[in-house]
Amino acid sequence: MTFSSKLIEKAVEAFASLPGIGRKTAFRLVLHMLKQDKSYTEQFTTALRDLREGIRDCNICHNLADTDTCQICADPQRDRSLVCIVENIRDLMAIEDTGQYRGLYHVLGGIISPIDGIGPADLNLDSLADRVSEGELKEIIMAISPTIEGETTVYYLSKKLQGSGVRISTIARGVSFGGDLEYTDELTLARSIVARIPYKE
Amino acid sequence: MTFSSKLIEKAVEAFASLPGIGRKTAFRLVLHMLKQDKSYTEQFTTALRDLREGIRDCNICHNLADTDTCQICADPQRDRSLVCIVENIRDLMAIEDTGQYRGLYHVLGGIISPIDGIGPADLNLDSLADRVSEGELKEIIMAISPTIEGETTVYYLSKKLQGSGVRISTIARGVSFGGDLEYTDELTLARSIVARIPYKE
Repeated sequence: MTFSSKLIEKAVEAFASLPGIGRKTAFRLVLHMLKQDKSYTEQFTTALRDLREGIRDCNICHNLADTDTCQICADPQRDRSLVCIVENIRDLMAIEDTGQYRGLYHVLGGIISPIDGIGPADLNLDSLADRVSEGELKEIIMAISPTIEGETTVYYLSKKLQGSGVRISTIARGVSFGGDLEYTDELTLARSIVARIPYKE
Repeated sequence: MTFSSKLIEKAVEAFASLPGIGRKTAFRLVLHMLKQDKSYTEQFTTALRDLREGIRDCNICHNLADTDTCQICADPQRDRSLVCIVENIRDLMAIEDTGQYRGLYHVLGGIISPIDGIGPADLNLDSLADRVSEGELKEIIMAISPTIEGETTVYYLSKKLQGSGVRISTIARGVSFGGDLEYTDELTLARSIVARIPYKE
């Protein structure tokens, strides 16, 4: 797909540089944009520029924030003794979307992965240590994906936090709601039996 | 999926306003953008703004153009006696991508569709009449999709052009290359037999 117009070519290249968008889709988006009023493109590009210029790391938990401190950390109703450690902002949002958690977060910005060259120094650990040393914190929940890298990270963190007096927990693993035992992988099924819980009516 | 950050919310809304992009994908695109350098967003938005401000209709064929006349119409190597009528720019590009056509185009900007309230007055027909009356044109190829609306449009145009001295043809219909006879619809198969062509080795 070639474009004789340089303006179109550049716009298609821009869209196609986004993940999961090929040149055909990019061209469809460009045509959509051209069908709308000029103010549409104006609003679209302004939203992206404002975002890129204005967004910052929360200075407490490294969540994305419009101001120095994110809305979660700034919320006085949140339980400040509880911190949930997550790998990235997508995981944070997934937990927020459940509406069940009322503590704070700490975004690591990655997990330890020697293959990808990511070591502890690449994660937001200094700021975590600062939060722990402030003394307000009572429990840390490790909400890290149960992969080899994730388990390594959890192990590393638990060693680091040993002796800090903070209780460490991990999110429960087991069979999903609506999950079918027959199709659950062996490891999950084995763990869900070992870590069985008393039945409550 | 809710965002506490207004900047993110607006950027997600912007991406999600594009066709085929939901809020989850939009958020993924926003995170991708935030991971890149600031210059990435700058280039991205500049490409879209430049496009929206700079692009115009070719004053001959209504193709998208960076200048008053599109590159195809401005190309002296093109056969100016031959014009291919297409519904929209996507169809024009599909034909251009074959690399087999060396004439000019005329983009209708739609097809006659009473259900959608599109009549002949909504199509670029005046400029087509102008091109015909200039006398340089010898043949018009109707490259319109073979739908009811398409056939109606072709019929209307052929009536309009009657007596202008211009030869009118339509693109060949038949079984696709690699197509399976068994799965070809009856109408196409029937036509491909009626409009059979001599075998050439």
